[in-house]
Amino acid sequence: MDKRYWSSRIRALEPYVPGEQPKDRVFIKLNTNENPYPPSPRVLEAARRAADGSLRLYPDPEACALRAALAELYGLRPEQVFCGNGSDEVLGLCFYAFFSPGKKVVFPDITYSFYPVYARLFGLDFEEIPLNGDFTLPVEKFLGGNGGAVVCNPNAPTGRAQPLENIRRIAQANPDAVVLVDEAYVDFGAESAVPLIDEYPNLAVVGTMSKSRSLAGMRLGWALGSADLIAGVNCVKNSFNSYPLDRVALAAGQAAAEDREYFEETRHKIMATRERAAARLRELGFAVHDSSANFLFAAHPDCPGKDLQQGLRDRGVLVRRFDRPRIENYLRISIGTDEEMEALCRACEEILNGR
Amino acid sequence: MDKRYWSSRIRALEPYVPGEQPKDRVFIKLNTNENPYPPSPRVLEAARRAADGSLRLYPDPEACALRAALAELYGLRPEQVFCGNGSDEVLGLCFYAFFSPGKKVVFPDITYSFYPVYARLFGLDFEEIPLNGDFTLPVEKFLGGNGGAVVCNPNAPTGRAQPLENIRRIAQANPDAVVLVDEAYVDFGAESAVPLIDEYPNLAVVGTMSKSRSLAGMRLGWALGSADLIAGVNCVKNSFNSYPLDRVALAAGQAAAEDREYFEETRHKIMATRERAAARLRELGFAVHDSSANFLFAAHPDCPGKDLQQGLRDRGVLVRRFDRPRIENYLRISIGTDEEMEALCRACEEILNGR
Repeated sequence: MDKRYWSSRIRALEPYVPGEQPKDRVFIKLNTNENPYPPSPRVLEAARRAADGSLRLYPDPEACALRAALAELYGLRPEQVFCGNGSDEVLGLCFYAFFSPGKKVVFPDITYSFYPVYARLFGLDFEEIPLNGDFTLPVEKFLGGNGGAVVCNPNAPTGRAQPLENIRRIAQANPDAVVLVDEAYVDFGAESAVPLIDEYPNLAVVGTMSKSRSLAGMRLGWALGSADLIAGVNCVKNSFNSYPLDRVALAAGQAAAEDREYFEETRHKIMATRERAAARLRELGFAVHDSSANFLFAAHPDCPGKDLQQGLRDRGVLVRRFDRPRIENYLRISIGTDEEMEALCRACEEILNGR
Repeated sequence: MDKRYWSSRIRALEPYVPGEQPKDRVFIKLNTNENPYPPSPRVLEAARRAADGSLRLYPDPEACALRAALAELYGLRPEQVFCGNGSDEVLGLCFYAFFSPGKKVVFPDITYSFYPVYARLFGLDFEEIPLNGDFTLPVEKFLGGNGGAVVCNPNAPTGRAQPLENIRRIAQANPDAVVLVDEAYVDFGAESAVPLIDEYPNLAVVGTMSKSRSLAGMRLGWALGSADLIAGVNCVKNSFNSYPLDRVALAAGQAAAEDREYFEETRHKIMATRERAAARLRELGFAVHDSSANFLFAAHPDCPGKDLQQGLRDRGVLVRRFDRPRIENYLRISIGTDEEMEALCRACEEILNGR
């Protein structure tokens, strides 16, 4: 690769690598935390209706209807809601909007691996605070003295939830810096920090429709916070891309925010499947962390994670593994349907018996 | 606005302001260079088909099918094609990927007003080179000694096209810096620089489906260049947002790239309407620049642009005006249908007669 024409600030970057999207063969896909159930029929109907001649026109750059629906859902005012192209984009915009060069941003060493990528992209100082041995958060290390903090709740890839009290303590102890809470997985059993927003003007909460609303393919995410924080995100967005959400996504997102019944039904199904799968994996000897997300984080004492992952792939099941210190033997297993989880468990059994 | 929690680098930004998207009443909308014709029926069919249960899955982060279709269209290899969320996002990513802090980027003073916004957002030095009095490009001022150049061809908001020879001279004279050619409007009568890509490894050409393919509402743009340049854009994109294009946009974009017949038909209709409207406006006493875009740039010697714009608005017609030195009396009038342009001309006549 000839990087002669690359900007000096990107030559050393290592981009984020998303989970594999296989094109060649059909897998049971438990590697990217997608929802096994399709989006609500109302959402698909709204998306198809939006795919009409009006696509010749720009979308609403302010996403007013979608923001109103989310404001209603979360009990906020529309000016407290920012919408973007999936929570990845929203997180990127928040990093740029809230964190300043020369001021250290902190986040755990084991968490969503995109955070250090954003920090490096934007030339931010950061420190990865080691989680405790049991993957709990060393809250005291997040209490002030830094230029911002990012907490994923429940955490990825461990699935572990933070008590709301911890988020409150962190927000309280950082009155001069923004605390970004990434709640991509919150609907599967953790407690949202949204009710703290009106108390803490430095608290921003990021969410997505990719997981609990089955819309990974539609790219819908948001940030919630004080109107002043949200204005900061808008300032960056409007200096980069006026229209990150297309007309179909806006319509689908609004319908998804409004259809609470389907949302409740599918997320509860996934949580029930998760508990059954966790029990089954524990029977097979796996160490499985309690999860409040739509995935399990599990390791087997008798089999390296790498071998398990490859054995599963050979048997048509994709799971994710992060080749990083402390967690290289863990599999992050997305929750599929009961049938898919049963196939996963049977494949694990076969691999373990074959050793 | 309390900017206490904003990053030090965004506090002084002035974001780009897109043209108005009216919500309250129905206007003849000639203010944002949208296409008056709907997208091809094949595109709408592909978009609706994509709005199915598979939206639960992430889109292809590499947009392989769309890139293959565009590579075929432009006679390039897929690794020479980058796809993003509209050409605004693509331009932003290119500014970050190719231009380095401390090295001056040059572009005209009268051009797409997003360029200085990107430069300020990313802390880049830049110089706005004054266009000649007749809005032609002072090519000699773009010949080297800088950290990058951006040329919009045809230029916005003037509509004036560059001869390909000028682009070649600029690319040739800047062997150490990237020359970014923004061809958002090229399909309405200018000559594309794409055939120069294999000759100049420093040449990147940006395009969009918002104008000539009637897909402003779908957010589809691209950059074309050497594989090494495109890898640089991918490096930034993959450090920011793995999936800027949703599944519906990918499907719609592919269908649009493949349907050349509809594309040829509608762009020729628009060019014919443009010439009729230009003639009609000249009859009314307007100074109208020759345009190779889907808009006209026109001023009237007897009436300030501000009054014309307001008078048109009062009569239900939106046009765009930029309150900047040298062009504050010009209206940028998007080409609508023949009927819409006739309504515009009648409204202008009424305003001028009423003075």
